[in-house]
Amino acid sequence: MKGNVIVGQSGGPTAAINSSLAGVYRTAKDRGAKKVYGMRFGIQGLLEEKYVDLSEHIATELDAELLKRTPAAYLGSCRYKLPGIHEDVTVYERIFEILEKLDIEAFIYIGGNDSMDTIKKLSDYAIIKGHSCKFVGCPKTVDNDLALTDHTPGYGSAAKYIGTSLKEIIRDSFCLEYDKGLVTVVEIMGRNAGWLTGAAVLSKGEDCTGPDLIYLPELPFDVDKFMDKVRELLSKKPSVVVALSEGIRDASGTYVCELGTAADYVDAFGHKQLTGTAAYLCNVIAGELGCKTRAIELSTLQRAASHLASRVDILEAYQVGGAAVKAADEGDTGKMVVLERLSDDPYQCGTEVKDVHKIANDEKLVPREWINEEGTYVTEDFLTYVKPLIQGDVSPIMVDGIPRHLFKHSI
Amino acid sequence: MKGNVIVGQSGGPTAAINSSLAGVYRTAKDRGAKKVYGMRFGIQGLLEEKYVDLSEHIATELDAELLKRTPAAYLGSCRYKLPGIHEDVTVYERIFEILEKLDIEAFIYIGGNDSMDTIKKLSDYAIIKGHSCKFVGCPKTVDNDLALTDHTPGYGSAAKYIGTSLKEIIRDSFCLEYDKGLVTVVEIMGRNAGWLTGAAVLSKGEDCTGPDLIYLPELPFDVDKFMDKVRELLSKKPSVVVALSEGIRDASGTYVCELGTAADYVDAFGHKQLTGTAAYLCNVIAGELGCKTRAIELSTLQRAASHLASRVDILEAYQVGGAAVKAADEGDTGKMVVLERLSDDPYQCGTEVKDVHKIANDEKLVPREWINEEGTYVTEDFLTYVKPLIQGDVSPIMVDGIPRHLFKHSI
Repeated sequence: MKGNVIVGQSGGPTAAINSSLAGVYRTAKDRGAKKVYGMRFGIQGLLEEKYVDLSEHIATELDAELLKRTPAAYLGSCRYKLPGIHEDVTVYERIFEILEKLDIEAFIYIGGNDSMDTIKKLSDYAIIKGHSCKFVGCPKTVDNDLALTDHTPGYGSAAKYIGTSLKEIIRDSFCLEYDKGLVTVVEIMGRNAGWLTGAAVLSKGEDCTGPDLIYLPELPFDVDKFMDKVRELLSKKPSVVVALSEGIRDASGTYVCELGTAADYVDAFGHKQLTGTAAYLCNVIAGELGCKTRAIELSTLQRAASHLASRVDILEAYQVGGAAVKAADEGDTGKMVVLERLSDDPYQCGTEVKDVHKIANDEKLVPREWINEEGTYVTEDFLTYVKPLIQGDVSPIMVDGIPRHLFKHSI
Repeated sequence: MKGNVIVGQSGGPTAAINSSLAGVYRTAKDRGAKKVYGMRFGIQGLLEEKYVDLSEHIATELDAELLKRTPAAYLGSCRYKLPGIHEDVTVYERIFEILEKLDIEAFIYIGGNDSMDTIKKLSDYAIIKGHSCKFVGCPKTVDNDLALTDHTPGYGSAAKYIGTSLKEIIRDSFCLEYDKGLVTVVEIMGRNAGWLTGAAVLSKGEDCTGPDLIYLPELPFDVDKFMDKVRELLSKKPSVVVALSEGIRDASGTYVCELGTAADYVDAFGHKQLTGTAAYLCNVIAGELGCKTRAIELSTLQRAASHLASRVDILEAYQVGGAAVKAADEGDTGKMVVLERLSDDPYQCGTEVKDVHKIANDEKLVPREWINEEGTYVTEDFLTYVKPLIQGDVSPIMVDGIPRHLFKHSI
């Protein structure tokens, strides 16, 4: 490389996104980039000329190792959607002015669907204007809903955390017995795609029964049928554990979490009370069955738990970062690096680059045939798919009993 | 030992309670006990003659290692309070009949305040009746609220999980910036004692600012003053993170989580909607400040996260189990094993036995001087106290990417 590289992080954070950042930095340096810049808060920050020189942040090999173990977007992230080129060309002119000033040869953007839209628009604009800068996307999302790639870095670590946490929750739930039983409802991220919720099945094994029911947002959710299932299970066992997605909707398309607010929960200030999906269903269960209930939301913990990251995930995140730089250096633009699974057993996976126009804004859902007929569990095919992605550990670097993250005062 | 030993687990589960069980078993066997029985679901199960022969469960050294890494009560637990001897002597007669049948020489009960009440009553009864069986308690509780002991096994691992999770939540919260800022409220266990909530301070370090505010249940909580603090912080930084106890109450003694329900949250079925403390305060914040909020309850995860256990905690839990058997074998009864801190730096801690009559039903709270003047943070003294308890790790035994627990079909 003759010029410089700039890299940004965009969309919801994950436990692996910083490993991709480390991969971008290492490969850019190895291929001769003079400077590697990091956008602060993605393209939105870049528009305000907020960026850092990454050599000040990844100054040593230890810094790189810490970065791989640091959750959330080290550089800060954004949820900024670029306007269409014909809607507001001044935004593009501004971005390219900054890129020229910084002598940027390769622009790498680590993100999900919206971020790939950014790569698409910027590369289109560069081609129209005859600008030589290359734009390559690097996949990232806990939701695993990016098209064309077998899976997305960030997903494996979240899946490992979900499987482990579910197992611990299930163990805990069997310890104390209640007169009318206990129903635990665990709410997992995923508005439209059930990849994360399906990962609850990973808790199942020789030493754990796994959750009793798993509901993904891909299929309509019927509260009455759900209650029948819970009632039946509760007549057979003292503890029932349900894993479900925050995004489950009824047949009319109404989010289950909105069924609660529809019933006019208004607080003393007159504000509408927002209830989670699990909290709402626990109230219905407690009301109808009189049993003890527990609503557990895995919340941001599931995307930030770098202390329980998957080694496969962290390594692949690092690889796609490097592959993105390599692709740009070799002349690719308007592309995203994808992971291509070559084999399940032994698990083998390589990287390729694909046209970002085929990826952007397209959500990959869990296939219907990977969910059972009734819509209450995932199948063996789902398990075969997800299992390789959670293998291996990345030992946290413990300082005084707590995992250490990368932090520099200049950020 | 000439006779047999029986051991039970009682009260809320922890990540370390099974390490005490392993310690009891090992020491009982080493001291010559013929049989070591485990009560299923504590004294409540024993009354129904539910017990197992532990040699079938801890058959190998590997089983013992797995047991130390298994969260929640392996034998099952209960929340059963024995009636007073003069209230219902038949319960006592029944228990001693079973103990005699099993030739029990030592009765070890692993639990918190209520469990020590059981030890007290049973040892009193044995003395009155001239029964030779010895009754010794083994401390356990994530809440750390047992009197006379420096700290309680189970607390250190929960504290380590809370510190680590808070750090990950804080990192995550700074990644995306919102127009009017983001306030995250993390709700931590502890109805009356703030030991767990105070452990949020462990997230603080060279690489993390720690939470902005910490509220313990030991002091009255003022919603207006809290709002002033949040407003002030939000004017200076984009993300504010608050750690608070589920048990915080206002000056009148009303739980903050009840302030929400007082405002008549009733769902479509006419059931009172239960709101958590964090969820309630997030609604107040969002309503008054218009910012984004996030309520996170660490829920049962914080007491079951054996994948992130503290080595000091797991070892001490094992030691107190062994010490309880030794005490009983040496003739002690009506006693509880306590941990006695000899030094902070280097941390040194030994076991002693104390009279259970001085312990039972007495809650140890966080000293006033370990909380700052305003009641919004814990002091250095708190940190000095808790830090040694989270040191070192217990590597989970990973099978197929997920921590393995001990499970036998006979349980």
